[in-house]
Amino acid sequence: MLETTIAAIAPLDESAMAAAREMHGRLTKPPGSLGALEDLSVRLAGLAGVCPPPLPEPAAVAIFAGDHGVHAQGVTPWPQEVTGQMIGNFLAGGAVVNAFARQAGASVTVVDVGVANPLATPDEVPDPAANDPATSGLPVQDPAVHDPATPRLVAASVRRGTRDFTVTAALTRDEALAAVCTGIRIADELIDAGAGILLTGDMGIGNTTPAAALIAAFTGVDPADSTGRGTGVDDPTYARKVAVVRAALALHEPDPADPLGVLAAVGGLEHAALTGLILGAAARRTPVLLDGVIAVSAALAAAAFAPNAVFAMVAGHRSAEPGATVALRSLGLDPLIDLGLRLGEGTGALLALPVVTGAVRVLHEVATFDSAGVAEK
Amino acid sequence: MLETTIAAIAPLDESAMAAAREMHGRLTKPPGSLGALEDLSVRLAGLAGVCPPPLPEPAAVAIFAGDHGVHAQGVTPWPQEVTGQMIGNFLAGGAVVNAFARQAGASVTVVDVGVANPLATPDEVPDPAANDPATSGLPVQDPAVHDPATPRLVAASVRRGTRDFTVTAALTRDEALAAVCTGIRIADELIDAGAGILLTGDMGIGNTTPAAALIAAFTGVDPADSTGRGTGVDDPTYARKVAVVRAALALHEPDPADPLGVLAAVGGLEHAALTGLILGAAARRTPVLLDGVIAVSAALAAAAFAPNAVFAMVAGHRSAEPGATVALRSLGLDPLIDLGLRLGEGTGALLALPVVTGAVRVLHEVATFDSAGVAEK
Repeated sequence: MLETTIAAIAPLDESAMAAAREMHGRLTKPPGSLGALEDLSVRLAGLAGVCPPPLPEPAAVAIFAGDHGVHAQGVTPWPQEVTGQMIGNFLAGGAVVNAFARQAGASVTVVDVGVANPLATPDEVPDPAANDPATSGLPVQDPAVHDPATPRLVAASVRRGTRDFTVTAALTRDEALAAVCTGIRIADELIDAGAGILLTGDMGIGNTTPAAALIAAFTGVDPADSTGRGTGVDDPTYARKVAVVRAALALHEPDPADPLGVLAAVGGLEHAALTGLILGAAARRTPVLLDGVIAVSAALAAAAFAPNAVFAMVAGHRSAEPGATVALRSLGLDPLIDLGLRLGEGTGALLALPVVTGAVRVLHEVATFDSAGVAEK
Repeated sequence: MLETTIAAIAPLDESAMAAAREMHGRLTKPPGSLGALEDLSVRLAGLAGVCPPPLPEPAAVAIFAGDHGVHAQGVTPWPQEVTGQMIGNFLAGGAVVNAFARQAGASVTVVDVGVANPLATPDEVPDPAANDPATSGLPVQDPAVHDPATPRLVAASVRRGTRDFTVTAALTRDEALAAVCTGIRIADELIDAGAGILLTGDMGIGNTTPAAALIAAFTGVDPADSTGRGTGVDDPTYARKVAVVRAALALHEPDPADPLGVLAAVGGLEHAALTGLILGAAARRTPVLLDGVIAVSAALAAAAFAPNAVFAMVAGHRSAEPGATVALRSLGLDPLIDLGLRLGEGTGALLALPVVTGAVRVLHEVATFDSAGVAEK
């Protein structure tokens, strides 16, 4: 499935991009006056292979949740059970991602790819047999997939949290592959149900530590430059976090040319699943709006699997985590929003969604100089 | 009217701000993780005097349109009749501001404060008697004020364009005052009709030249630092534009402590009206979302009239015009969006609107750690 997906990821359509550039010159505005929105709309035309590209509607946020063995190293002051508790909060509609998704009219799909503790709501505890995506598949098509008012839970746990990667590989290659394939299947499911854009979300106490390790592994920067304070750790915890990332890279010596190996060695289940989501979106020529540091660490893995996947990526915002800026630079992406957010969940992507929609809407709705009877310079 | 408005502009309510800060600490997210959105929501609580502050809905864009005598100096390649033609485009719903307003659910009110040429649609040509705001007032309350699908035109022309300020003052003090008062009255009308936030818009071929002059006059920077390429002028036109601004400042020596005098000497009718809109919003403790360089030049005048008016201002975006950055720095405002836009019309403010709404929505809708049963660190 991964190979088929990678093989389907193609370059941008140059003729659709040329048509979008030409159209921008005829619309009633000074040429270039929409700045980055013009470039974005041209790229989305190239991705869709048609000008104007479809409006990115409906929008679907996929929040992948997992826990982390490296939590045992004291890299965060938050207890691990918060991951499962926050899933309950997402399903009840009480989190920031829910507030932003309601405002943006986006649906929220929470995917348990590896939460450590049983989920709070008994009905939502994944059946172990149903949890192996290799044998059971995901839940059958839900007609309410794109109902912004009803968050849904998909049970697709690969294992109940990763192993502590300061001791051993976080995942086996098979486990990492299973998580990547879950992401691809979620992308397919959401796009089959009509999604015009996918937004990345994540939840996992401790997950900025594997993100920092992935970013250092893929870009080659020093762990001190890819590691940040996450939810706001103090100085001793931050020093420990950098040391943990450095130790893991020294132990595993991950090879950036082997992205599955990198994900297995120092990644997380939600990071691997997000890699799959991004690849799945790119294979379907559907834009994927990246949230923060977890998303961009997964995007590096996706780009290592398939360099053309970058064409489908839109950087929603610049997380306050320093690793996010390192990853964005490596990917060649400029973020749409830069407001010091460091929450995750998909919140930064949701804030940027109206900018993406607006960029495309211009090509659909704005009058030309000719049609509006406006003189040109 | 101006004096009454200025007198009504008060500092922020400290107790509402303290309540908002305390509330942010209880919501299910790491403290501070929403970055600039948290600070913004705290300030809007202080502006409203209550926590949570009301959601900024409905949103109303007011586009003030005017022409400029300095157009005769060759500061732009666009013919002056485009101002009136673009008003026709706004009313037909064909401009970028319309596309963004429909997406954001914002109404669009176009105010002719000084267009040079008769407007294209005969019914919409202002009656000269109705055009003197001192005697006629604005149109009676329209029930469709906040209908996002129906842009409306308000005829409130003070004069058919300013005078060439390289020769004489652009406006008399009385004319400048009439335009400021028109802005205040539009603010009152929109807020009386229920607007929860006002967005600044502008249209006026050549209007970045008076904006550059205003910014230089209020901040003291050299005209070369406040003047940009507007809609995209070539090198000789740019050099002429800087020279024109420099000559105007040398001729009039405007005193920044006399904002009405500055607006009269080197301003524009839409700049003066926007100054009034901002003051009117601040007096009603209603946020005003600033668009680009025209808006921030007017904001400098508003702050000179009433320093506390800054508390009501939200900087929507950083225009590509260098003067915008000079003005934002002087006002102490950080923009929400920075994507190289230089279109005006209110487009940058509209792109930022969901960020403002999202910041406030968090205080309305997000669960607390207690209510959601989520553990704290």
